[in-house]
Amino acid sequence: MAGVAHRIVTLTTDFGHQDPYVGVVKGVILSGCPDARIVDLNHEIPAFDIRAGAWSLKISLPYLPAGSIHIAVIDPQVGSNQRRIALKTRDFVILAPDNGLTSAFIFQAERAFVLDKPQFFGKSVSNTFHARDIFAPIAAHLLNGERLEKLGSEIDPGTLARLEGLEPEVSSGHLEGAIVYTDRYGNLITNIRAQDQNKFCQIELGKHVLTIADGSYDTIGDGETKVVIGSHGYLEIAVKQGSAASQIKARNGDKVIARWA
Amino acid sequence: MAGVAHRIVTLTTDFGHQDPYVGVVKGVILSGCPDARIVDLNHEIPAFDIRAGAWSLKISLPYLPAGSIHIAVIDPQVGSNQRRIALKTRDFVILAPDNGLTSAFIFQAERAFVLDKPQFFGKSVSNTFHARDIFAPIAAHLLNGERLEKLGSEIDPGTLARLEGLEPEVSSGHLEGAIVYTDRYGNLITNIRAQDQNKFCQIELGKHVLTIADGSYDTIGDGETKVVIGSHGYLEIAVKQGSAASQIKARNGDKVIARWA
Amino acid sequence: MAGVAHRIVTLTTDFGHQDPYVGVVKGVILSGCPDARIVDLNHEIPAFDIRAGAWSLKISLPYLPAGSIHIAVIDPQVGSNQRRIALKTRDFVILAPDNGLTSAFIFQAERAFVLDKPQFFGKSVSNTFHARDIFAPIAAHLLNGERLEKLGSEIDPGTLARLEGLEPEVSSGHLEGAIVYTDRYGNLITNIRAQDQNKFCQIELGKHVLTIADGSYDTIGDGETKVVIGSHGYLEIAVKQGSAASQIKARNGDKVIARWA
Repeated sequence: MAGVAHRIVTLTTDFGHQDPYVGVVKGVILSGCPDARIVDLNHEIPAFDIRAGAWSLKISLPYLPAGSIHIAVIDPQVGSNQRRIALKTRDFVILAPDNGLTSAFIFQAERAFVLDKPQFFGKSVSNTFHARDIFAPIAAHLLNGERLEKLGSEIDPGTLARLEGLEPEVSSGHLEGAIVYTDRYGNLITNIRAQDQNKFCQIELGKHVLTIADGSYDTIGDGETKVVIGSHGYLEIAVKQGSAASQIKARNGDKVIARWA
Repeated sequence: MAGVAHRIVTLTTDFGHQDPYVGVVKGVILSGCPDARIVDLNHEIPAFDIRAGAWSLKISLPYLPAGSIHIAVIDPQVGSNQRRIALKTRDFVILAPDNGLTSAFIFQAERAFVLDKPQFFGKSVSNTFHARDIFAPIAAHLLNGERLEKLGSEIDPGTLARLEGLEPEVSSGHLEGAIVYTDRYGNLITNIRAQDQNKFCQIELGKHVLTIADGSYDTIGDGETKVVIGSHGYLEIAVKQGSAASQIKARNGDKVIARWA
Repeated sequence: MAGVAHRIVTLTTDFGHQDPYVGVVKGVILSGCPDARIVDLNHEIPAFDIRAGAWSLKISLPYLPAGSIHIAVIDPQVGSNQRRIALKTRDFVILAPDNGLTSAFIFQAERAFVLDKPQFFGKSVSNTFHARDIFAPIAAHLLNGERLEKLGSEIDPGTLARLEGLEPEVSSGHLEGAIVYTDRYGNLITNIRAQDQNKFCQIELGKHVLTIADGSYDTIGDGETKVVIGSHGYLEIAVKQGSAASQIKARNGDKVIARWA
């Protein structure tokens, strides 16, 4: 793994910012590896929303330096007998519960490990805070140069939990996708790739029939709702300097139909 | 103090994230010590809530590396003649107003100092922003190796302000504690230590009589409200993948009775 | 530019904390310069509010170390043919869209550049996310020691966009200023410099006639609304341990009259 000298570790959680949980996780990482460079990717994943977490990872991780360690914890089943896993690609390692969070990266996994060696965890392991007690200590060991083979037991990446519905389905005459994320501005982000934009004649969301704008938010007329090519390479539904989410009253999971031209 | 080479300084405040205040404090620390590693522990302590700040420090600081400097500012009396103090334990230094914020650590204080030497403050000291004008410059001096003896005047740690009610009280037949923190998930965290769990037959919160779950959130049945052993070692009242705070309508400060078995 | 060895880059945006956008920008900076020290100044500028962004920069940047690079992105016109610029003062460089965000620093600009050389941008440039695709890569080049002359084309700083109304206007008998920022505590911050406080006999906000307190928040009586000298050197309207914004029902942009004594 190239570039591990930079000791970058990122965090993606549903812990929010109003509690000391994120700070405690950082404390444990730094206690194990004072040189760690910790990067907050997202702590405001809606509570327990594994799908939004998987989406956030999908669009974020490709922009981090090769050699980064990524901790991802959205964990409604914490304390159950669900596995804690490490997924290794050419460029990075993700540490996460085995609940589908890593779905977008399974196809590029080179190796996977179950984290089953308590001697590498924190001194005591709670039932409810594995980010602090398991993932942060394991991340510190990795940053210090320990090998995954020593920290866990190898498993077949094909056994990792996978979420359904992250990719749209092809039907005759249309593609059936969904709203997968609503951002701060109220933009409704779909899972339909923008590179296909010229193949579509229209986009349907509930009873709304929309067309694709020739450019960015700025080319939308006042009061118009349009489909634009989002910055992450997916189609998104937007209103000029306004919230499409509140104007259309759509939400994550709503079906989006893209009709072939 | 071991490990000071890592130059870690943490921040616990009620400044929130929507204003530039936290960034300005970081700017001052970095202007004094460009090598500082700043860790945000918590900036969403409810405004002026010294008790929640003291709790957040209590459960966070033990996880940070030895040698860290901790700035804590929840300061409703800012600008009054209240003292600004430094409390030194074996492992760390806390810089804070003397209003009870450091209550959980007074018993382990080795030394304490009042920060009364303006030559170590910022160039001009406002009446309303001591984090920027006093605590950040003092932290930078400490990170650069300056000694507390030089930066302040020694005082008896026994004179530091202390909050009442952080610990539960023992009565005949029960322990009387309180909800001390409500987290993002709506878990109601008490100040009753989990290690005593087997000694209790029931927990009472208002008219609700609750039993202690055999494990973590995941073992609670759908729709049930239970007491679980929280990750910080205290009993907390939880609902499976839901908010106990909204179901029970309890809040910080509410009394919790734990009956001895 | 002194001190560039510290490789500090700051971020001021309206991206909020609930999306992965900030993390992605950090990833791009670190991919270009793994030694970068990234400081979050403010990500909660109200969406599209260039004026609040300009204010946040005005009061923050003077506290950062000399040699820092500052990225500022509040960009309602993203994707239009608006220029992306770099403004260089003696102490720092700001990278921003040319929409008035840098207004407070134009008078001290030594040089300015338009960022018009796509070979220094990210591999593909979206229409909607210039922080990731343009400003972050340019910042990484600067942190790595590249010169602005190479990264852009020099322009006259006098051509940079400027916001009206950041400074109050002098009339006969009074100064006409405005509320420019409302902070988390509900303090209403004006653009009237506190150093003039003794020259004023009263401050008027709508039908409210207020006097200037002798000190900080703590000297305000219970239930009183007063004008205090804010920590940034401007007059602000405050209520003791309460919210002036909700008591007076004022908002950003509201006119404030300061009568000469």
